[in-house]
Amino acid sequence: MSTATTPAAPGLTARRPAGLAERIARSAATDRGAHLATEDFHDWLDGRRRANTFRVDKIPFDALDGWSFDEADGNLVHRSGRFFTVEGLHVVEEDGPYGDGPYRSWYQPVIKQPEVGILGILAKEFDGVLHFLMQAKMEPGNPNLLQLSPTVQATRSNYTKAHRGGDVKYIEYFTGAEHGTVIADSLQSEHGAWFFHKSNRNMIVEATGEVPLLDDFCWLTLGQLGELLHQDNVINMDARTVLSCVPYEDADAGRALLSDVQLLSWFTGERSRHDVRARRVPLRELPGWKQGEETIEHEEGRHFKVVAVSVQAGNREVTSWTQPLIEPVGLGVAAFLTRDFDGVPHYLVHARVEGGFLDTVELAPTVQYTPGNYAHLPSDERPPFLDLVLDADPARVRYEAVHSEEGGRFLNAESRYLLVEADETQAPADPPPGYAWATAAQLTSLTRHGHYLNVQARTLLACVHAGAVRP
Amino acid sequence: MSTATTPAAPGLTARRPAGLAERIARSAATDRGAHLATEDFHDWLDGRRRANTFRVDKIPFDALDGWSFDEADGNLVHRSGRFFTVEGLHVVEEDGPYGDGPYRSWYQPVIKQPEVGILGILAKEFDGVLHFLMQAKMEPGNPNLLQLSPTVQATRSNYTKAHRGGDVKYIEYFTGAEHGTVIADSLQSEHGAWFFHKSNRNMIVEATGEVPLLDDFCWLTLGQLGELLHQDNVINMDARTVLSCVPYEDADAGRALLSDVQLLSWFTGERSRHDVRARRVPLRELPGWKQGEETIEHEEGRHFKVVAVSVQAGNREVTSWTQPLIEPVGLGVAAFLTRDFDGVPHYLVHARVEGGFLDTVELAPTVQYTPGNYAHLPSDERPPFLDLVLDADPARVRYEAVHSEEGGRFLNAESRYLLVEADETQAPADPPPGYAWATAAQLTSLTRHGHYLNVQARTLLACVHAGAVRP
Repeated sequence: MSTATTPAAPGLTARRPAGLAERIARSAATDRGAHLATEDFHDWLDGRRRANTFRVDKIPFDALDGWSFDEADGNLVHRSGRFFTVEGLHVVEEDGPYGDGPYRSWYQPVIKQPEVGILGILAKEFDGVLHFLMQAKMEPGNPNLLQLSPTVQATRSNYTKAHRGGDVKYIEYFTGAEHGTVIADSLQSEHGAWFFHKSNRNMIVEATGEVPLLDDFCWLTLGQLGELLHQDNVINMDARTVLSCVPYEDADAGRALLSDVQLLSWFTGERSRHDVRARRVPLRELPGWKQGEETIEHEEGRHFKVVAVSVQAGNREVTSWTQPLIEPVGLGVAAFLTRDFDGVPHYLVHARVEGGFLDTVELAPTVQYTPGNYAHLPSDERPPFLDLVLDADPARVRYEAVHSEEGGRFLNAESRYLLVEADETQAPADPPPGYAWATAAQLTSLTRHGHYLNVQARTLLACVHAGAVRP
Repeated sequence: MSTATTPAAPGLTARRPAGLAERIARSAATDRGAHLATEDFHDWLDGRRRANTFRVDKIPFDALDGWSFDEADGNLVHRSGRFFTVEGLHVVEEDGPYGDGPYRSWYQPVIKQPEVGILGILAKEFDGVLHFLMQAKMEPGNPNLLQLSPTVQATRSNYTKAHRGGDVKYIEYFTGAEHGTVIADSLQSEHGAWFFHKSNRNMIVEATGEVPLLDDFCWLTLGQLGELLHQDNVINMDARTVLSCVPYEDADAGRALLSDVQLLSWFTGERSRHDVRARRVPLRELPGWKQGEETIEHEEGRHFKVVAVSVQAGNREVTSWTQPLIEPVGLGVAAFLTRDFDGVPHYLVHARVEGGFLDTVELAPTVQYTPGNYAHLPSDERPPFLDLVLDADPARVRYEAVHSEEGGRFLNAESRYLLVEADETQAPADPPPGYAWATAAQLTSLTRHGHYLNVQARTLLACVHAGAVRP
């Protein structure tokens, strides 16, 4: 080993930077921001709402501008070949261990948008406390249109100007052009029930220098964001998934029901025993779905519809456009059952198949369903733990809020997000196949990597941390 | 939080079990096994060779039994619909950041085998030292037929008896039927240049009770395995990839050139900027490839051939069969450039596109090429660092051995695996785009998860640890 031949080497750094966990904890414990008090937040948001004009109307498909059904396969496409397409998907699930497990096969419309977008939150210390730069952003599918988004929420089409609109503000911090320190950066999946193989880059970057504060943006601490996560439809999905990647420290002294390798081994086993093959097929004449002038919908009225809207907006890159959206049928429920073992809270994760996942299963909340889709079934055929959550004693509900999914693709896609305390009779320490107990610290460590937690589980993980703020 | 409602909770465990790293280190430092001395190993292996009869012959495709070219698309398939198929693949790479980077498009044959196999090594302490149960296993594609494989090396077809052969020995330790403690368990990719979306479950399980020792099996310490990794074609690919998952402790005091989050962020950026679309196409009339009676080969004689063999074997599940294999053209080279920074060895990883990867890029060795494929190019168009490795001063070579790839699918697929010491002029601390420096501990931590290190990088990581055993 000839160290003599190497010139003065650059200094090494710690693999895990010292002090970051404490700075995260300090921000989470700070409920009074240096810039905007939480009680003034809604005045500020209302101000942003008044400063801009928004209008969203449903339209028939043939009133879409630039979008049409492809002659060959009936897929809904944009004439530029960009943005996204709505196609058909055929999913076959033949579960193991020997292909002799449950068999399912279904067809559904799906959004195909293969590009990787950036969801980025800029961070900066004020008065010694980390603040996070959030944007009041209109999205046509949000029930209240304006919600709090990450600093940057950009598809690749956005920042390559496919919209022919304005620049993406603050993008330079996330493309490396402006100096900063990366706090989190991973590719995370989007909704596997509605997107095919879609993931976005979830980033948190701490700015090194001064950061100008633009209209529609505000600095908030993690404590303030935690309080706002207790309110319905304030923190949008993109902000929630980035916040789930905040590297909170392990407050549980490195203890859990399963060791990390046991948890990963269980997950590897779940991925191995599920055999899921998803194949894109033409949207035209998709079995089980019927196409009208204004909707493509399930023959039994379940799951979701494909619809079209026209949008007029004053603070977006482009002031008016039309686009398709996916509109779920009914309010969803996404809930973790939670139990304390030896004083350490655990959450019951479910290895869930969604047709659009890149790889078979991801970890989902204990319960993630649209109850209306199962109302026709006798109780013993309804999904595990669903009735337990729907009928939960309010005293057992440790967190509850309604949040909506990505308003750029989904219309009024609202779910009740809950943390529900359970006991041994309801949710045993040795759970049924497909379920496992994990701590918040374990789930947080998995968000360093992609394709472990699905987007609903990540929303709930952000809420778990919010719950710690205001129990 | 009503702990009163939870009954006596099961005890928690440490997320990272204490003592394991020390036990791994002890096994790595032990070069005298409790059962078989390393100097007696080759006598034992020769004995296994004499106890069995093997014969492999190339045959024309029409002499394959049960395999044929599908009438519709020309794909090479088995009549049972199981095992694997040889199909065509069309890969288009339009790299970012804006799809304006390098553009490549190519066609190639590819093996499609969607099932997840198990590669498992059973571990057990003898005389206070962890030993690993290895199998002398014949594979038709190995240049020397018999090599040392994991305890279990089974496709799902194997253990569902699609071969109509014998049981898979020791499989019960890896399916949970027999009690043991999991040391490592992750889904790892196979060769992205030859397989489409193939991964296998890499497991190490420590047996709790007595383990019977069967013919063709032997117990070896990590120190012994490290010595054998210095010999050509002894430790097969499946054993090497499982050994790369051994959770060695971080001997570098948690220091590195890049912090873990910087390394992951660089990787996320590489995955995001590469836009790779791989689509299966008919094998018949695959552009750039020509089909003969005995081979499917590249028109310019590069890359690899598809061939067929007949196999007769005395110690396998089935005593004779025929099958297709992929036969690379020429000896490959896979090498990490390595440098010490501040006394800590680092390895230069390359974010490499392979058409069969599940997701765009994985981390490959600095150099991973078949030099013959590039011999026609002028030196400034040859792959980065290739000539540096091929022309390396022997004094700079810290590890070198020839290993072959999976002998169940690849015929004589040999590569020279090297660790080559470099200096600042050859491999700067701030490397070119697509390359990054990482420590062995960082790479080891990535093998806890799938789809970070490709199979060649995992072989070299096993060799890095072997190199530590006999520097």
